[in-house]
Amino acid sequence: MVKNTVCVIGGDLRQKRLCELLLKDGYTVKTIGLFEDDSDLSPLKSADIAVFPMPMSFDNVYINAPFSKKQIAMHSVLEALPDGCFVLGGRISKETEDALTKRGLKFADYYKREELIVKNAIPTAEGALEIAFSELPITIFGSKSLVIGYGRVGKVMAKKLRALESDVTVSARKYADFAWIEEGGMNAIHTEDLPVFAGNFDLIINTVPAMILTEEVLKRVRDDALIIDLASKPGGVDFGSAKRLSRNVIWALSLPGKTSPVTSGEIIKEAITNILEETGVLDE
Amino acid sequence: MVKNTVCVIGGDLRQKRLCELLLKDGYTVKTIGLFEDDSDLSPLKSADIAVFPMPMSFDNVYINAPFSKKQIAMHSVLEALPDGCFVLGGRISKETEDALTKRGLKFADYYKREELIVKNAIPTAEGALEIAFSELPITIFGSKSLVIGYGRVGKVMAKKLRALESDVTVSARKYADFAWIEEGGMNAIHTEDLPVFAGNFDLIINTVPAMILTEEVLKRVRDDALIIDLASKPGGVDFGSAKRLSRNVIWALSLPGKTSPVTSGEIIKEAITNILEETGVLDE
Amino acid sequence: MVKNTVCVIGGDLRQKRLCELLLKDGYTVKTIGLFEDDSDLSPLKSADIAVFPMPMSFDNVYINAPFSKKQIAMHSVLEALPDGCFVLGGRISKETEDALTKRGLKFADYYKREELIVKNAIPTAEGALEIAFSELPITIFGSKSLVIGYGRVGKVMAKKLRALESDVTVSARKYADFAWIEEGGMNAIHTEDLPVFAGNFDLIINTVPAMILTEEVLKRVRDDALIIDLASKPGGVDFGSAKRLSRNVIWALSLPGKTSPVTSGEIIKEAITNILEETGVLDE
Amino acid sequence: MVKNTVCVIGGDLRQKRLCELLLKDGYTVKTIGLFEDDSDLSPLKSADIAVFPMPMSFDNVYINAPFSKKQIAMHSVLEALPDGCFVLGGRISKETEDALTKRGLKFADYYKREELIVKNAIPTAEGALEIAFSELPITIFGSKSLVIGYGRVGKVMAKKLRALESDVTVSARKYADFAWIEEGGMNAIHTEDLPVFAGNFDLIINTVPAMILTEEVLKRVRDDALIIDLASKPGGVDFGSAKRLSRNVIWALSLPGKTSPVTSGEIIKEAITNILEETGVLDE
Repeated sequence: MVKNTVCVIGGDLRQKRLCELLLKDGYTVKTIGLFEDDSDLSPLKSADIAVFPMPMSFDNVYINAPFSKKQIAMHSVLEALPDGCFVLGGRISKETEDALTKRGLKFADYYKREELIVKNAIPTAEGALEIAFSELPITIFGSKSLVIGYGRVGKVMAKKLRALESDVTVSARKYADFAWIEEGGMNAIHTEDLPVFAGNFDLIINTVPAMILTEEVLKRVRDDALIIDLASKPGGVDFGSAKRLSRNVIWALSLPGKTSPVTSGEIIKEAITNILEETGVLDE
Repeated sequence: MVKNTVCVIGGDLRQKRLCELLLKDGYTVKTIGLFEDDSDLSPLKSADIAVFPMPMSFDNVYINAPFSKKQIAMHSVLEALPDGCFVLGGRISKETEDALTKRGLKFADYYKREELIVKNAIPTAEGALEIAFSELPITIFGSKSLVIGYGRVGKVMAKKLRALESDVTVSARKYADFAWIEEGGMNAIHTEDLPVFAGNFDLIINTVPAMILTEEVLKRVRDDALIIDLASKPGGVDFGSAKRLSRNVIWALSLPGKTSPVTSGEIIKEAITNILEETGVLDE
Repeated sequence: MVKNTVCVIGGDLRQKRLCELLLKDGYTVKTIGLFEDDSDLSPLKSADIAVFPMPMSFDNVYINAPFSKKQIAMHSVLEALPDGCFVLGGRISKETEDALTKRGLKFADYYKREELIVKNAIPTAEGALEIAFSELPITIFGSKSLVIGYGRVGKVMAKKLRALESDVTVSARKYADFAWIEEGGMNAIHTEDLPVFAGNFDLIINTVPAMILTEEVLKRVRDDALIIDLASKPGGVDFGSAKRLSRNVIWALSLPGKTSPVTSGEIIKEAITNILEETGVLDE
Repeated sequence: MVKNTVCVIGGDLRQKRLCELLLKDGYTVKTIGLFEDDSDLSPLKSADIAVFPMPMSFDNVYINAPFSKKQIAMHSVLEALPDGCFVLGGRISKETEDALTKRGLKFADYYKREELIVKNAIPTAEGALEIAFSELPITIFGSKSLVIGYGRVGKVMAKKLRALESDVTVSARKYADFAWIEEGGMNAIHTEDLPVFAGNFDLIINTVPAMILTEEVLKRVRDDALIIDLASKPGGVDFGSAKRLSRNVIWALSLPGKTSPVTSGEIIKEAITNILEETGVLDE
């Protein structure tokens, strides 16, 4: 039985689910900024482990704490962390890392865990399916779909489209990827050949964070096709051209937290548990 | 090459898609009430085949013609049908059947075609998935789902849930159905045992048009579960009890036309083509 | 707890597995002719239920009892059945039915149970896959296969080929079957069009007990194709023509008992249990 | 149109299929030791490309040439290779590499190509299924199976077992692998926990070339379970203990060439084409 005290700071429904699961595991759980009126920092004093949300902050000034009535300053929380406290967060910024290091606190970024990234591909793909169901006037069944990229999200996305009987093509760049794509009963094309094939699809889902759907490609895309861009940061679509060409593009970010917060909380829980096991932080 | 003239009367995006496909097949296509300003009945004169929407009418008085600015009276259309015209419609009412018989016109109800009913189960199931994705805070992946009934919609629904890696249970009443359910890698329970098992599921989808989800069953359903009722006419849920118990119930009717009108138009086209082939109505 | 005595007469590994499962359920189990030296009929005296194998006999003279050193005459067993004994058998012949009726004994043929026929389609399909793996110099993955008939065996066979990523075509005769075949992600053709398409396939599996693969069709079949005939009684292949044309045909009968006797015993057990439940034969 | 001359030296049905495909692509194809009487080395003179089998030789003395009546010495072939000839082979030995380097010839080992290794996992998995169908008295459907290792073969093997509705567990060592295994609808266990779980399975397939199925593990394996060892070189099973414990172990090596030589030839062809494209060896 674990006897550690975890303090969960900020976050949304995901962190609420996380709290439930930590309680089930026998942790003492305290919260700051996860509810309307829990902005008091005093619970931090007894924390063996502090868990921040994903991302920790949108502006590096205030904690990402959408349910809290009061804003909670990052720096005051960082100062209030007790010595020896183990810090967990999602997408920890360079500034925060430096601050934690200066404080002499150990920390880990659960958003960098491979198992979390893989598992998050599932709600991401389901969220993309929801968009496709909602936007397309045809069924996924029997549709012609293209998934750009065969990384974690691309793999799961392509598989689910195939499971729903879409005729799936995946674009990639490596021979080994082509082999896996074909092994999965799908068509493989080289990403360089996108301009040649772009006009064949009812549904195009980009998973690559690089400018892939350029004006050249978008011109060939059918005007009744739906484009869903799942790629983070700069995205993979030339949105200006898309607008000019009246292409139907939806940029869908952070789907796991939005469409499946409870499952996302469970995925975070799993990653955190694995980190704690590996680092041997816990009391016996 | 077919040389017949088809007149498409009323309907929505499904009938527009139908018109496109009939044109591709070489038919001469005319419309009444499918657009804003085509309410004139004169195109009927030359019609070899008249195609009405599904349903033909909501009130037995006016044609189901949502795009038309003017309302179009059923009786005036029925009178204007030329002798020898073959009439196709979806859910033709008894009154209309009588009127057509009196006129000596042959007719067929494409909504009674088994192949249409089977194919329509696909957009219905996809529509239900869209609702589940949207309403549930968990992923379908890993969820526990129950499909009530193993008819056309039940079969397709259960298969798609399984394809998305839900842990699927299906309730039915016959040993042979149990065998097929198990063959499909799913759990089978007897519909009579629903009260015993109802509390196990995150997602419950009813496909049986009979009062199945009674107060007794609803009481056992978990309060964070989602219930989707796909059953027509009376539905299969005691909505009063559901409200009282704050169960999350969504009654989703006529999903194919709503969520996948283009595919639905293609399904109607296929059924119509099969009818015309079987009845030998066409020239040549 | 069931307290009935079951006597299992004749049979092979299937009936041995059946005995194990009946014992687990609490029945008193006795055997005649299931082992080397159990040919004595005296255990019959106390039998509430008598279970014969599938088929009961190959010649209507002796019990189908391959493990028994001595042959066991049908007529002496039928005479030795006690009054009130409930008789279960697989493919009970007309003669045996008459004899049982004359004796005033109730009986049921478990081989006629729909759930057994469905479940038996699984080992049948797996047995056909084993043959295909063994005979074909290509992988099922990526092969072009044809399943003739969309009954119980055809459905399961086609699904398993698809699951292994064969490009599957199914031939059938009804529009509704075509719809289901397409729903399953497979190609549908009309059985009448077999001569047109027969040359397209690496693997052809017939499930229809009628002369389908005539000389006309066999001529078009590629000479490196494998034909597996799963159809009972007359079979569906013109074997004379096949020999003359050097087509590779394998007639595979009774696969469940041969390739998966343990599973087959479990399927028989399930059918028997369902019969007993329905007929209310059991003591409480 | 390619105008190069390829000389195919030794090999079995795979190389015959390779020759067919090279001819189709427009290459001039010559053979040495691929048929009964083609042991003459003179065709080598005009070879732009020389293709050796997989493996090139079993003893580093003679070419692997099972169809040839005469044995063909490695050293005489290596000497006869013309200057500028590009050499392709499978599992080229260190000695041969040295000899080729001394000759100043460029070479590549197609057996090291990731896409070939991935594609070969398919016939390997199908071969293992054939063994399982043949050896097990139960159906794969409904069986409990364990795949040890989640590399190329493990991934494909597990997926095919699941496609046939086995209840699949995969053992691995990394959290990310566990995530992928669960994403695939399978159970994940840590390889270290094999002794705990080994008794649960009807079918155990090892894909890891390390001593995994030790006496300790084998003791827990059920005596009616089937063990298939797909791991190369030392294998992963303590065969001595397995014999002593009467465990049913089948060591299945080089399945692709044995069970699907035609497909294997196609896979080699693809790898060779990719190598030639990358290295720019071909004339234009």
